[in-house]
Amino acid sequence: MSRIRILIEYDGTHYAGWQRQKNALTVQEVLEDTLGSLLGQRITLFGASRTDAGVHALGQTAHFDAQSSIPPEKLFLAANTHLPPDIRLCASEAAEPDFHARFCTRGKHYTYQIYNSCHGPAILRNQVMFVPAPLDLAAMQEAAQLFVGTHDFTCAMAAGSNVRDCVRTVYDLTLQRRDDVIAMDVRGNGFLYNMVRIFAGTLICVGQHKLDKQEIAAAMAARDRRLLGFTAQPQGLFLRRVYYDRPVFGLSPDFNPFC
Amino acid sequence: MSRIRILIEYDGTHYAGWQRQKNALTVQEVLEDTLGSLLGQRITLFGASRTDAGVHALGQTAHFDAQSSIPPEKLFLAANTHLPPDIRLCASEAAEPDFHARFCTRGKHYTYQIYNSCHGPAILRNQVMFVPAPLDLAAMQEAAQLFVGTHDFTCAMAAGSNVRDCVRTVYDLTLQRRDDVIAMDVRGNGFLYNMVRIFAGTLICVGQHKLDKQEIAAAMAARDRRLLGFTAQPQGLFLRRVYYDRPVFGLSPDFNPFC
Repeated sequence: MSRIRILIEYDGTHYAGWQRQKNALTVQEVLEDTLGSLLGQRITLFGASRTDAGVHALGQTAHFDAQSSIPPEKLFLAANTHLPPDIRLCASEAAEPDFHARFCTRGKHYTYQIYNSCHGPAILRNQVMFVPAPLDLAAMQEAAQLFVGTHDFTCAMAAGSNVRDCVRTVYDLTLQRRDDVIAMDVRGNGFLYNMVRIFAGTLICVGQHKLDKQEIAAAMAARDRRLLGFTAQPQGLFLRRVYYDRPVFGLSPDFNPFC
Repeated sequence: MSRIRILIEYDGTHYAGWQRQKNALTVQEVLEDTLGSLLGQRITLFGASRTDAGVHALGQTAHFDAQSSIPPEKLFLAANTHLPPDIRLCASEAAEPDFHARFCTRGKHYTYQIYNSCHGPAILRNQVMFVPAPLDLAAMQEAAQLFVGTHDFTCAMAAGSNVRDCVRTVYDLTLQRRDDVIAMDVRGNGFLYNMVRIFAGTLICVGQHKLDKQEIAAAMAARDRRLLGFTAQPQGLFLRRVYYDRPVFGLSPDFNPFC
């Protein structure tokens, strides 16, 4: 048995998220079944991030142990010939025995896409949240800086999650408009459940002048989810990259600023 | 009766192109039926461009005559509440009685997207042509300049089309790589059937060093379709904008360099 890691892109539109479930099709299930039949053995995948239904990934990372007759660095090409078109392996390689796709992470990069126009999107309809109201981008960019740094993000965690330590570090959070799309890029050492979508929903409220910096600061101090904005829709969210404690997939070390 | 023009975005994936057909669903049919039931009268649309099956539009333009109880500049909002999610009206307005969406055009802007990576695209799978082989972008950019200017483009017209005058002017043709996507943008005063897809297929051959500038020049001189590259797949093609002999949809005149 040897350990293999894979880099995965998927369109989450038609899946009930990453994690295997009893009564719904998930990305993990499709990948485990495809790799299992390809390698002729039962495969258990460990993914870096449990993305929700409708959420997309450009750089999901996972590992598994297998006896592979196919060279690990060629495995992704073989798998792509059997996978559905909305799931692609971008790379595969032999991993160190101590590599764990979830526990060796040092950070993640998410992008959230807002479609801000008087008309909804036809082509991007499954990859953006549509916000017809005008948005004050400068106000959003300014308020976003409140989330940067090391903070207790209890206020930005979905109600009901029971995580003890809610302190996380957000390295950067930027917003840029390109035509009708406002892209929010956020990188951090870890994210609580729904944290990025709560950032997006909150900044959309700021852009509509329904929330201001003082109210966000108060919500963070009070650790009260109810004081921040709504949880933005899942289809606007992309897991762009997972950063690790070591170089992976031949990406230059400077690609990973958090090692 | 008054004349109304509309600006249309659509995802062509699930349609047999723009033009109404007997036995296949088209964008024109969906729009005529939706506007017809909305306005309570039979609507006949005249579109600027007959896009093929699978081809997308960000700025298709059409006109029709109707007695509209809805103010023309509000019509697009009403229509969007009845249209399927893969067709959106971006704008609507009263048009001059002599405006014709097809005959008043001065030029068009098309974008062709090539996905150039060792793995296929999951998220962009219906909006790009996947080319796994490495592409020499500099060679493609250089060869593209042969198509710029006023030429007889018989060699870049689908075999079987019977157009008399094949002389067209290409204003500019640029290629840019952004991550895995190479976008080819071309603007001209008119395009022959499949012309943009033949440009794309030919430049893909150049990028793979299967064709060179001399061979393209020879094909143009010989007016021989067989001497150029293949016709690139439809799903990579976007009709981005139609330019007119007058300002439309409040777009600044400088947006239309060809008036």
